[in-house]
Amino acid sequence: MNSKGRLYGVGVGPGDPELLTLKALRLIRSASVIAYQSAIDRESIARKIVSPYLPGNQIEVLYHLPRALEPEKAQAIYDKEVEPIGEHLAAGRDVVVLCEGDPFFYGSFMYIFTRLSDQYQTEVVPGISSLMACPVSLGVPFTYYNDILTVLPATLPTEMLTAQLLATDAAAIMKLGRHFVKVRDILHQLGLASRAKYIERATTTQQRILPLDEVDPEQVPYFSMIVIPTKQRL
Amino acid sequence: MNSKGRLYGVGVGPGDPELLTLKALRLIRSASVIAYQSAIDRESIARKIVSPYLPGNQIEVLYHLPRALEPEKAQAIYDKEVEPIGEHLAAGRDVVVLCEGDPFFYGSFMYIFTRLSDQYQTEVVPGISSLMACPVSLGVPFTYYNDILTVLPATLPTEMLTAQLLATDAAAIMKLGRHFVKVRDILHQLGLASRAKYIERATTTQQRILPLDEVDPEQVPYFSMIVIPTKQRL
Repeated sequence: MNSKGRLYGVGVGPGDPELLTLKALRLIRSASVIAYQSAIDRESIARKIVSPYLPGNQIEVLYHLPRALEPEKAQAIYDKEVEPIGEHLAAGRDVVVLCEGDPFFYGSFMYIFTRLSDQYQTEVVPGISSLMACPVSLGVPFTYYNDILTVLPATLPTEMLTAQLLATDAAAIMKLGRHFVKVRDILHQLGLASRAKYIERATTTQQRILPLDEVDPEQVPYFSMIVIPTKQRL
Repeated sequence: MNSKGRLYGVGVGPGDPELLTLKALRLIRSASVIAYQSAIDRESIARKIVSPYLPGNQIEVLYHLPRALEPEKAQAIYDKEVEPIGEHLAAGRDVVVLCEGDPFFYGSFMYIFTRLSDQYQTEVVPGISSLMACPVSLGVPFTYYNDILTVLPATLPTEMLTAQLLATDAAAIMKLGRHFVKVRDILHQLGLASRAKYIERATTTQQRILPLDEVDPEQVPYFSMIVIPTKQRL
């Protein structure tokens, strides 16, 4: 009898195909099925990153996990989107899920992991996160020695963002999109605007680095970050 | 006339040689000089990670950046340790500095970067940080959606660690070593001990995962981490 397939959650890094790990490359090339997320009618970013390495004879499964939903409301949608992956695993096919950045770090893979890892042998491969890639692309040492680092989704309310920024040595603010103006204003209020660095689509061919006050708030993509590096200079 | 060499700060990941990126592998193989840090009389961890890939004909530069020093007191030592790297660059040789984890994330490369990147063309390559590798090795999704994540050095005072842990959704506590008991006691006091996961030397052949209360405080290595994953379950 055929045994069950194995589930792999594989981090593919921030955008540059050369920032794939050797392990990710090996698993991606050898899987029967690759699965990846995409917004409807858009090319999958994760698939684009690995496209130079695909052997061309794999089954591909596309899923959609809408981002803006409140987590509680999304359960039914997520259950349904994960079904085709479960079917391939049940049929004995290994499935590699391509994950932008790192699978367990604000990644969509976790919605698949929580639904399938009890039933199928699962292996996760860490990837280069935007949290590491953005400071490197900006050329700013991020955290030294005994610094506190705080990662903040821009979706948080103003008071919470302010309190967190006041209590930390270094910060990364993610998921900027339509929250950019709120964040920029807080940074000015706290005297952090001159230290803050803005970057979008780090390590891709569309990477852009802009001074905070030159960013057009109407044009801030989801894949953007504000990095506030440590003040320490050693 | 010979031009100056280029400086590369290359993240080699947390320990598993297969977690090197394709870019790191290319640069490491092609450099005239590789440089790496090591405690005196110990094998360099960074060199060990890349040893399967070294061509065997490279100049190797070892440097020591003592960890326990206060940053201010360390300046003279760091200046001196960086000198041989500067000499190779001045002589026109490319130098790849091997960095455990990621170069700009609590890494020793930053002491080299701040001293040499003004004078020599410098490129930094991000690496898989223990911050990503530890949750993956523990099998726990780390942060979802709008979670706040705080990275805390265990060297911080009790009151500061307590305040930070109370204000975050997920945390990683690093540099445990002799600070383990303090951290463990705080986690019990805050009711976080059952959620906290302990891991040492993640992704290496010596990796160990232990329940928090079974860790021998006398045996906690520098390369250990306590991960407190998000409470959200989606």
